[in-house]
Amino acid sequence: MSIKQRIAVSSSESPASGYEVLVGAGIFGSIGAILSNFCPAQRYAVVTDDRVAELYAVRLSRMLHAAGYRADVFAFTAGEARKTRETWALVSDAMMEAGLGRDAAVVAFGGGVPGDLGGFVAATYMRGLTLVQLPTSLLAMIDSSVGGKTGVDTPAGKNMVGAFHQPRCVVIDPDLLRTLPPEHLRAGMAEAVKHGAIADPEYLDWIEQSAHKLLGGDPEALCRMIVRSVEIKAEIVKRDVREAGPRKLLNFGHTLGHAVESLSGYTLLHGEAVAIGMVEEARLGERIGVTAAGTAARLRRVLTRLGLPASLPLEYAAADVIGWTRGDKKSRDGRVEYALIEGVGTPAVRDGRWGAPVADETVAAVLAGAGRS
Amino acid sequence: MSIKQRIAVSSSESPASGYEVLVGAGIFGSIGAILSNFCPAQRYAVVTDDRVAELYAVRLSRMLHAAGYRADVFAFTAGEARKTRETWALVSDAMMEAGLGRDAAVVAFGGGVPGDLGGFVAATYMRGLTLVQLPTSLLAMIDSSVGGKTGVDTPAGKNMVGAFHQPRCVVIDPDLLRTLPPEHLRAGMAEAVKHGAIADPEYLDWIEQSAHKLLGGDPEALCRMIVRSVEIKAEIVKRDVREAGPRKLLNFGHTLGHAVESLSGYTLLHGEAVAIGMVEEARLGERIGVTAAGTAARLRRVLTRLGLPASLPLEYAAADVIGWTRGDKKSRDGRVEYALIEGVGTPAVRDGRWGAPVADETVAAVLAGAGRS
Repeated sequence: MSIKQRIAVSSSESPASGYEVLVGAGIFGSIGAILSNFCPAQRYAVVTDDRVAELYAVRLSRMLHAAGYRADVFAFTAGEARKTRETWALVSDAMMEAGLGRDAAVVAFGGGVPGDLGGFVAATYMRGLTLVQLPTSLLAMIDSSVGGKTGVDTPAGKNMVGAFHQPRCVVIDPDLLRTLPPEHLRAGMAEAVKHGAIADPEYLDWIEQSAHKLLGGDPEALCRMIVRSVEIKAEIVKRDVREAGPRKLLNFGHTLGHAVESLSGYTLLHGEAVAIGMVEEARLGERIGVTAAGTAARLRRVLTRLGLPASLPLEYAAADVIGWTRGDKKSRDGRVEYALIEGVGTPAVRDGRWGAPVADETVAAVLAGAGRS
Repeated sequence: MSIKQRIAVSSSESPASGYEVLVGAGIFGSIGAILSNFCPAQRYAVVTDDRVAELYAVRLSRMLHAAGYRADVFAFTAGEARKTRETWALVSDAMMEAGLGRDAAVVAFGGGVPGDLGGFVAATYMRGLTLVQLPTSLLAMIDSSVGGKTGVDTPAGKNMVGAFHQPRCVVIDPDLLRTLPPEHLRAGMAEAVKHGAIADPEYLDWIEQSAHKLLGGDPEALCRMIVRSVEIKAEIVKRDVREAGPRKLLNFGHTLGHAVESLSGYTLLHGEAVAIGMVEEARLGERIGVTAAGTAARLRRVLTRLGLPASLPLEYAAADVIGWTRGDKKSRDGRVEYALIEGVGTPAVRDGRWGAPVADETVAAVLAGAGRS
């Protein structure tokens, strides 16, 4: 095993559920030994999509069998459109058919969709199996595989049903990014920009300066991005596992982002939608006097450098976007809550609240001027 | 509020998730004040079945509205056959349609089915809502409402998907038992017999002596049964929230019980199946030398006194029963695990294990002689 970095993720709420994120180029090749050390189980259920399965399932199965483990692969059709309760039920039923018991572990293998769906299967199969996250997309590596959020989409919106279920370990091999389509690599970087925006101005500067290397797939630069983003996320999750306070900060860009992503019928990638959401939420913050002037412009510059969209496209009507936000999980007591920043690296916290309710009219006024500031 | 007893349920694993079980005749009439004190929320989603709704939903809604709360009732068709992923999805979707957000709380209102299903809705709706258990059946009052087990059945078996989700409080009003059909009252007592069998010989004696009063619906006797059973269950759950060790003990009678219940197509009530399961598992324990001779006969006497079945009916073939047990959650690494007792009040723990794997042939030999010992 050539693990380069180990980042501990712990929780003040329940110390026993801490785990480690292992990062290292090539560590996928040692997955048998890693599971033996960090998540021993009688059998493994690899939950993945058919795209990832085609690329890596044979190799993964061989490695697990060589390590003496019984492993079955459960692959569903790739795409956010399949992140549903129906797919969750199909995978669970196939695992029951295969005779997997409570002593099995789930390996959620792939991008955000297999990670979230595989995690939800693990959270609910016979009331909970141990879980390993083995992400293959940049988005999953730097964001969704860490923190224990699992779930599926429903007709009402993204991740509307799910559970908090912490993995036993997260195994990140940046070499797996070589097979990731360039637009997905780019989209994943939106979450890294978010980490810089909410917690670390120097990291944001570094991303901007390293944009060329990152987009070119430079292994050193990608590894550095993964490690720094995981560190930031782990620090926030540690303070607030169940999203009652500080963790809400990670929703920066996601209230409007989720709305736009849903409205696009998932033709926009999650990261692309979050890029748009961050700029528009920064503009929103500037308008209501929470966010320092110039913050939206700064974020727009970095995102544009990464080739990401940075304002709401004109084909999205403000009223439709606002309509979507009202059905989102961030709606409390009828008002929609936004996680805002005061400036790059500085969260907006008022009266101990990490989210601020904003009136629809204000959001409408900001979105009406979108793309023109 | 005339709360007669408050029983604390805590967990050594996560002390923050402790809660109280409130028991008192007539406390249903103070539900508004109780929720204000123990589980304040912006809105309440009452998840129940149509039978309970017909009896109590109007009164419950009125009381919550009178207390100044917004409350919606989500009622599905009664019966174990509806404890499915489909019903869970229907209820969740209806709650989204009604605009319930993360600041809502679920009141799981009814017998074991609304309790388990409503609990699973709460566990997974937007990754978790706070939950109140408000049981109306004896089974739910003394067993399923306490301990945080939630879930639904799948074609593969009972409670095959679910989650551990502790309630914020459990409100038990024995007066609600007046509308419970006699066969359900009787069936619920099987779990009380189990509590005596695994933890308290004097309690078992008292149940036997009080059988007449209990079956007649004597309020004092029922209240005493509820309190003692909840105490025993709370003590076990406290030691082992996630069923890794001592909690397995609560499965006494349930490995064969679940199999028989499933095989009957749910024409047998859960408690009736557990009654059969306890006697047969005691006979199994006697055969393999774990359980003291005479234990099965002792349990059979108490169960018969309560009018419950106490041996496997001849129409169930041993091979079918054994086939079902293999697909159950208690199957580990291909062997079926049984939670056995050494004698009344004494769990069988060997080498730190609370469950013992038993070979199919042994189970077959015991079941072949069922009803004839």
